[in-house]
Order: sequence, then C-alpha cells, then structure tokens
Amino acid sequence: MSKIAIDMMGTDLGINPIIGALKVFMKKYQDVTFILVGNESEIQTAVTKVKLDATRYEIFATTEVILMTEGLMEVRRKPNSSMVRAAELLRDQKADAFLSGGSTAAFLAACHFIVGEIPGISRPAFMSFIPTIKKGKSVLMLDVGANLENEPQDLVNFAIMASVYAQAIMHNPTPTVAILNIGKEASKGKDYHKEAYKLLAGNNKVNFKGNIEPRDITSNLVDIIVTDGFTGNIALKTLEGMAKNLMAVIKYELTKNLYRKLKALSLRKAFRGVRETFDYRNNASALVLGLKAIAIKTHGSSDEKSWISTLEMARTAIVNDFVQKITIKLLKED
Amino acid sequence: MSKIAIDMMGTDLGINPIIGALKVFMKKYQDVTFILVGNESEIQTAVTKVKLDATRYEIFATTEVILMTEGLMEVRRKPNSSMVRAAELLRDQKADAFLSGGSTAAFLAACHFIVGEIPGISRPAFMSFIPTIKKGKSVLMLDVGANLENEPQDLVNFAIMASVYAQAIMHNPTPTVAILNIGKEASKGKDYHKEAYKLLAGNNKVNFKGNIEPRDITSNLVDIIVTDGFTGNIALKTLEGMAKNLMAVIKYELTKNLYRKLKALSLRKAFRGVRETFDYRNNASALVLGLKAIAIKTHGSSDEKSWISTLEMARTAIVNDFVQKITIKLLKED
Repeated sequence: MSKIAIDMMGTDLGINPIIGALKVFMKKYQDVTFILVGNESEIQTAVTKVKLDATRYEIFATTEVILMTEGLMEVRRKPNSSMVRAAELLRDQKADAFLSGGSTAAFLAACHFIVGEIPGISRPAFMSFIPTIKKGKSVLMLDVGANLENEPQDLVNFAIMASVYAQAIMHNPTPTVAILNIGKEASKGKDYHKEAYKLLAGNNKVNFKGNIEPRDITSNLVDIIVTDGFTGNIALKTLEGMAKNLMAVIKYELTKNLYRKLKALSLRKAFRGVRETFDYRNNASALVLGLKAIAIKTHGSSDEKSWISTLEMARTAIVNDFVQKITIKLLKED
Repeated sequence: MSKIAIDMMGTDLGINPIIGALKVFMKKYQDVTFILVGNESEIQTAVTKVKLDATRYEIFATTEVILMTEGLMEVRRKPNSSMVRAAELLRDQKADAFLSGGSTAAFLAACHFIVGEIPGISRPAFMSFIPTIKKGKSVLMLDVGANLENEPQDLVNFAIMASVYAQAIMHNPTPTVAILNIGKEASKGKDYHKEAYKLLAGNNKVNFKGNIEPRDITSNLVDIIVTDGFTGNIALKTLEGMAKNLMAVIKYELTKNLYRKLKALSLRKAFRGVRETFDYRNNASALVLGLKAIAIKTHGSSDEKSWISTLEMARTAIVNDFVQKITIKLLKED
C-alpha cells in the first residue's frame, strides 16, 4: 500500500477540486492511502460532504498556510504550514510522495531544504508531460521552471533522469533526447547549449539526437527535450497559451450563427478528439526530478481533472520505484 | 516613387515565389519600383515567363551567392554576392529598403557592416508581427532572433522604436508595452528582466504595462512585447509550431471519414476565419529596428503569400518615413 501526502492549502481554487479528485481516484485505485495536510475543520467538512472513504485517508492538522504570493523564506518562517509538514512526511518516509499546488518558490525551497537531492544532483528540474500531435503520446520536457539558469552538466543530468523515467514507466527502451534550441546545428545557441551538445553527444547513457527547434516540440520527433528552466518555462507557457487561444478562436467561429452551431454540433466527436490530443489539463503538473523522493507540483489553478492526473502521476512514480532507478543509473559508471 | 532592392538568391525555394509576389504586388501598388539583385539569366528567365512589367524593375547582376548554411564571414568573403550588393544599394541610397530571404547570420552582418545602426543603438532587433485572437490585430514582438543576449537598455530601445512604429504606421497614439517574462510580478525573471522593468517603468517615452506571461502573447493584452533575442525566438517558433500542429490535428480529425468530411466542408467559411486569424504566412518576416535604413528579413522558406506581405511591410515603412521618425524620437530629450 502506497501513501501520498497532499498539501491541501495555498492553492487558487481551495480544497474542493482536490477532494473531488480523491473521490474519483479512490474508486479507480485501491492501492493508495492519503495524508491530507492542512486546516483540520476545513478538510473535515469537505471530506464529510463527499463521503470520502475514511479508511483511505488521515488528516494531519496544521495551523499555518504559505500563500501563493509568498516565497522561499516562508518555509523557514512557517514550520507548521501544510507545505512544510507534508514535505517532512516525505523526508521521514511516512509518505511515498508529496504533492502541492501552492507557491512554486516555497515548494522548491521545501524540496531542497527538507526533502533533499540525490547525491551528484545540484539542480533538480520540473519535468512536464507535453501532448504531441500523436494522441496519447507526450514528450517529456525539463526543466520547465525549477531553475532560472542551468549549466551544461545539468542538461546531461536531466537527460539521464528523464531517460530512466521513459524506460521504467513509459516502457520505452531507447528514449531519444534533444536540446531545445533556436536551430538544429550543433553551433546554434548560447555557449552552454554548445557545451551541453558536446557532453550529450559523448554520453552513452542517453540516446542523443541533437537540437530540436521550438516549432517541433509537439511534433513527436523525440521522447525527451532538455532545456534550462527559464527557456522551458517560456516554451511551455507559450504552448499552453497558443492552444487555449486557438481553441477560443475556433469556438468563436463555430458558434457565430445558428447554422454553424448546428453543423459544429454534428462534429462534436471530432472536436473532442482534438481536445483530447492537446488537453493541457492532463498536463498541469510537473514531477520534480533529482530529489531523494517523489515530489510533484501542480498549478495553483488546477481543477479536479488536473488533480486526478497529478494523483495518477504520483502513483505511477511510486509503484515503479522511480527514484531508486534514477539513483542507480546516475551512480553507475559509464 | 519608392525603390526596393531585393536579394533574389540564397533562399530555400528559389526565385519563383519572389517573382510571383512581385507580379501581384505591382498590380496592387503603382508607387514602387524594384532592383532585383542576383543571377542575371535566372532572373531574366523568370520575369519573362510571368511577363513582369519591365518599366517597374531593373536587374542588378551579381555572380556570388551566400548560401543559407553560410555565416557572417561570407559578407566579407563574397563582395559580389546578391546580399552584399543589395545592402550596398540601401547604404548608397539607391534603394529605400533591402529585403532578403537568405542566411540570417550573413544578413545581420550585412546590416551591421554595410547599412549601419542609428546613433545610440548598439543592438538592432528583429521585430515580428504576431497574430492575436482578435482577427487582423497583431502584437509587435522584438527581438525575435537578431541577438542571443540583450542588456536592459536594449529592451528600452526596443520599446521606444516599436512604439514609434505603432504610432506612425499602425495609428495607435498610445501603444502599450510589456516585457515577456515567466511571471507578472516585477520581481520575476533574471536580473536583466528586473533591471529592464525598472528602466521602462521610469521612461516617459513608452506606455509600460509591466510583465506579460507567454500564455498571453496572442491574447491581445498589449501592443508591444519586448524580450531578448533568444527568448523571443523560442517563443515565436513555439507559437508557429503549436498553430501548425493544432491545425494539423484538426484537419486529421475532420477528414477521418466521409461523414466528417462533408460536415466540415459546410463549415469551410468558419475554418477560413480561424486560418485568417492565426495565419503565420502573413507574418513570416521581421523588420530590423535600429538601422539607418529599412531592412527586412523573411524566412528562407517563404512562399509567394509571405513575400507579398514582406513587400507590403517594406512599402509601408518607406511611405511612412519610419526610420526618420525613430531617429528623432530616440534623440529627443525626455
């Protein structure tokens, strides 16, 4: 039986989407229990309302909340906050994973100061699952925002860790890796791109395919894309925004008059197919790679559907003993 | 009568899309003539074939070509190349604008070494016109790839120059400006973002609105987005790729079977509306801001439609005496 600690506080939408997701998740999977960390009476009211199976969770009462607008220092200043306590449950092996939809800066501080990194990893990364043109096939992109800047060796570590994920969890024996860059040639980009290119080309732990341009992030050309955290965050949010705005324009055009509305209605299965291919609610979360245990950050605005996929991501990582496999691979001699 | 010098060589698709665009453009506008710079016999054959009006162009014969894969050094090594000669026509005021679809690195070198910058501008920028959710309304984004890195003051100069463009050419008296960043708060991003934020907030030549997240590049929230060239290039190419791939998935879903095909056919006007809103062929070109004269770079793979919009961009900049207006604004005391 696996156990997941959830920081219930500090999100934009409150605890209801999390409770709703737990209700759905518990029906689907029988092998996970939960520690719900946060304001006791608020959690109690919510779980009672949806009649959450009381044998599958315990409540860990905390009195402080780290707000979305607060930064890394709050991890020190609020020792009895839901985020800090949830991270401590992970550190003390009372939980197998720790999830939060709270402040990103505070979350990263909690990961670093409380959970800690795998030996040899100085900069953990947020790994995102990005939908591609092939329905159901995601490309793994990292770092998408845990760091502002990265060294060439960080990108190599990202490539190795994501390759282990693809092998162990996605059953892809030889996942391909590319560097996100402004051009395909090895000479493109900043100095750190060129250096990372050389290091990856000479590393036998990864199946390196060179640079990939941002035009092809969603083209299903490679399995893993590595980048510094600033660039990855820009690219990820640009994708999300373009998908959202393009769908909004399509909706506007298709509902402009009654004729179009009726015709569009008859094509709803087709549009569902499109939405399912590029649905970013299935991808609202980022797995932290490089920590001693499993931590996952989801958007502060994640809805129930996003939280369900976050819970599934955590379960999958736990069941596959993912951190252990990464650690072994990183320590293995070439 | 305005005169545009076109580097006819070194593109991916050869000279035919350019000649085709000239044919269309000449019918639409009577106030521009052209200097077609490149291989004489090749150009002669192509213009004869489409019966291009011989009173509207002259051919400037060159013997060398800078290839798409060649870099900035070729500008020195190939003095009789079409790109170098076309840039010289601009420098010598024998042309009012210079267009090229060739090597970006060589083009930038030609701009710097031959055309030269406006006093006070150390780093010119590529400005791109990015379609937004509002049909026909573009947001100006710069730099999208002339530089790899930029200083805070560069972003201020970009903001001032683009503001002049929006005022003089887009008839927008108070264009709004934002910095592309990973979050809205002034504290977000790298040091140079924070410094640029301060400088822009204190500059009375621009209407500064703070940071904008990549999610909202196409949301029509501001008129101008400033960024370093690496980040801008990543964002632009991510937008293009997502638009292309999302449209490909929609096409796939809508043509999956005969039923869907027929229904989709009856909605073709709606889909045309979508395509016209987010058509990147109208935006394949970047205007160089910061030079003493008008230079425009278009994709090496630009088709006839892209070249038509490139020619229109050049004509608009010439007719509005754009460089003169920028120079005056930059030199003006606060």
